[in-house]
Amino acid sequence: MKAEIISIGTEILLGEITDTNAAFLAGELPQLGIDLYWVTQVGDNRGRMLEVLHRAWNRSDLIILSGGLGPTEDDITRESIAEMLGEETRLDPDLEKWLRGLFDRIGYEMPERNLKQATLVPSAKAIPNPKGSAPGWWVTRDERILIAMPGPPAEMKRMWKREIKDELRLVIGNVVICSRTLKIFGLGEAQVDEMLGALLSSENPTIGVYAKQTGIEVRLTAKADNEEDAKCMITPMEGQLRSMFSDKIWGFDDDVIEQVVGDLLLDQGLTLATMESCTGGLLANLITDVPGSSVYFKGGFVTYSNEMKAEYGVDSGLLAKHGAVSSQVSEAMAEAVRNRLGADIGIGITGVAGPEKREDKPIGTIYIGISDRKETRSIHAIFPQHRPRIKRYAVMSALNELRHLLLQSQADSNR
Amino acid sequence: MKAEIISIGTEILLGEITDTNAAFLAGELPQLGIDLYWVTQVGDNRGRMLEVLHRAWNRSDLIILSGGLGPTEDDITRESIAEMLGEETRLDPDLEKWLRGLFDRIGYEMPERNLKQATLVPSAKAIPNPKGSAPGWWVTRDERILIAMPGPPAEMKRMWKREIKDELRLVIGNVVICSRTLKIFGLGEAQVDEMLGALLSSENPTIGVYAKQTGIEVRLTAKADNEEDAKCMITPMEGQLRSMFSDKIWGFDDDVIEQVVGDLLLDQGLTLATMESCTGGLLANLITDVPGSSVYFKGGFVTYSNEMKAEYGVDSGLLAKHGAVSSQVSEAMAEAVRNRLGADIGIGITGVAGPEKREDKPIGTIYIGISDRKETRSIHAIFPQHRPRIKRYAVMSALNELRHLLLQSQADSNR
Repeated sequence: MKAEIISIGTEILLGEITDTNAAFLAGELPQLGIDLYWVTQVGDNRGRMLEVLHRAWNRSDLIILSGGLGPTEDDITRESIAEMLGEETRLDPDLEKWLRGLFDRIGYEMPERNLKQATLVPSAKAIPNPKGSAPGWWVTRDERILIAMPGPPAEMKRMWKREIKDELRLVIGNVVICSRTLKIFGLGEAQVDEMLGALLSSENPTIGVYAKQTGIEVRLTAKADNEEDAKCMITPMEGQLRSMFSDKIWGFDDDVIEQVVGDLLLDQGLTLATMESCTGGLLANLITDVPGSSVYFKGGFVTYSNEMKAEYGVDSGLLAKHGAVSSQVSEAMAEAVRNRLGADIGIGITGVAGPEKREDKPIGTIYIGISDRKETRSIHAIFPQHRPRIKRYAVMSALNELRHLLLQSQADSNR
Repeated sequence: MKAEIISIGTEILLGEITDTNAAFLAGELPQLGIDLYWVTQVGDNRGRMLEVLHRAWNRSDLIILSGGLGPTEDDITRESIAEMLGEETRLDPDLEKWLRGLFDRIGYEMPERNLKQATLVPSAKAIPNPKGSAPGWWVTRDERILIAMPGPPAEMKRMWKREIKDELRLVIGNVVICSRTLKIFGLGEAQVDEMLGALLSSENPTIGVYAKQTGIEVRLTAKADNEEDAKCMITPMEGQLRSMFSDKIWGFDDDVIEQVVGDLLLDQGLTLATMESCTGGLLANLITDVPGSSVYFKGGFVTYSNEMKAEYGVDSGLLAKHGAVSSQVSEAMAEAVRNRLGADIGIGITGVAGPEKREDKPIGTIYIGISDRKETRSIHAIFPQHRPRIKRYAVMSALNELRHLLLQSQADSNR
């Protein structure tokens, strides 16, 4: 079933509001096995709206509109639909009764212009809207369905969930779409693409690759008659990907890495402390975004000067010999904060966030030290990006490194 | 000039991401006196993208695309534009050199498939993208302009602001639109609306009020034949607003408050140190987002436990008597970190970020202590929000409080 979404309202085209309705509906359709082919935003202009409606009616099986059902003159969605269909709008007695009752209850005289909200065309039935004065339209004709909903997101969402979603499911029969997203760090988008190779052309499940600030996401989407079958189609390919990317995968679906490492720390009853230079507190900030993080996060230092690094446990000899931006100092930072705050694990981050190079190290140079009761080690990377990006990548790398350490210690303790 | 926006990416049609690019661009075009007629979202599908491109080329003078410029197989924006124009893509030597250099700097071998990011068609020139590996395309032909930008909002916005907006202004000429945005903290949207009163109905300049995470923004927009006239229309009204909101205004246009306070600290040669509890390093992180902040930022503690607070200078008697979430402790934190790190000014933040209340204080309770060589004081607020919001508001309040302190000391020294 080919679906199309049309969002109506000049305020969208003026950038005064972001069209979140289309995004919400786009996220709903896959659950119904409906393929969305087009989303169009159009202003409150009769000619352009008719153009868009005619095109939609000619190319799509399901057309979902939101906006333009209000009482004012520039709300012309009903009139435009009627004109496109070549049908007459007429006042519906039941709707009028309901609408007048609505105004009686709030003790207002109903402005006559609201009457248009009580109109229908022959091939349309009304969709109840207890949250506002604009009922929706459900048009069925020529093996097509056209649904018009009010623009205010709260009204639209309620109408969709309570009045439309299930009925659509009945009408189109139950094709189900299930998806699984695997989250990868440490590989580039093109590398992931190359590793996936022929799999990318798989049609069911399909595979999509997306670059995010937290790394690369690989999404599997399967279509079947029921959820069980759809999942059965995903499972083997997910297994294939998991063995392909192994420990480069740090999570799936809605996972966030600070929660992933937080859970690992909780499971193993370990505590964490951080000493940050170039990331300036971003690591501590992310860790403490997780509710309950106070259980395992001992605290952190933001040591933005060499003096402070030295004062809080980094051997000034090391600083002098290797410079603040060095693997030795990152490891010393990790050990220092671990000891100072009595934590099981310490992380130290030092590097060059830019805009100037430091100690002749290029912008984007990062050293991450990590230290537990057994050993201290460090990793090194260069992210040629602008300042905030460098900080984010550095922190992402640190959290991923911590994840590796915790998985290792988990494995050891399970031996 | 008729403009049209096309957002490309199957992830938009799957509802995985909301199309904020279109909303951003829609908000920009009025400033250039450009009328936006259509916004279309289309997936990474050659046939449908061509259909959309052909229609746009036939009905619009300016076509702005974002998305689909990546290196992977499903990134087909370049190829589709070329096919629509009936032109051949060819490798551009300069772009290839630049791209290979990009990979050399990170020390990766460039995957061959990235090469397509270095291609052009005859009627296109490249638009630089220092933030990523995808340059934009600026196509001029048949009295039309087609602009293709990468999808990641950070890359798209930079390219628009730095490389495209002004050049478009030149091309279009005639009507000039100037705007001035005043940034306000400490007043709600409705309060600002009420204070503006009749001014809101002014037609040229127009006044728009927008609620942002950093407070309220009031934007003046004037239309005239030339920049000078437009500015002359804005200046008196800006003066009116400045006297109306006085020191509630912390900045204008592209100002960010961490930069504003950073500049004030630089001017006065003062240094800063922070001790954060509930904000978990977010304050230090924002401060260090500013290039050159190492000159005035001495460093910070993230004291996520009472033990650490006590260990780093907060009188444990105070903690016991008033609890960690108290004005007394916030002031003690500010003084402690100021002394420990030898800074001129210390800031301490303590509060309840949730999800549970602490010490019977409601979620969203925040105490901010601020201490300089002369005095120590604190402010108190309750932000009934969810965790990340509470942290952000708390940090925003702290930076705004610091701003007030610095303006005061500036005034004193000017006496």
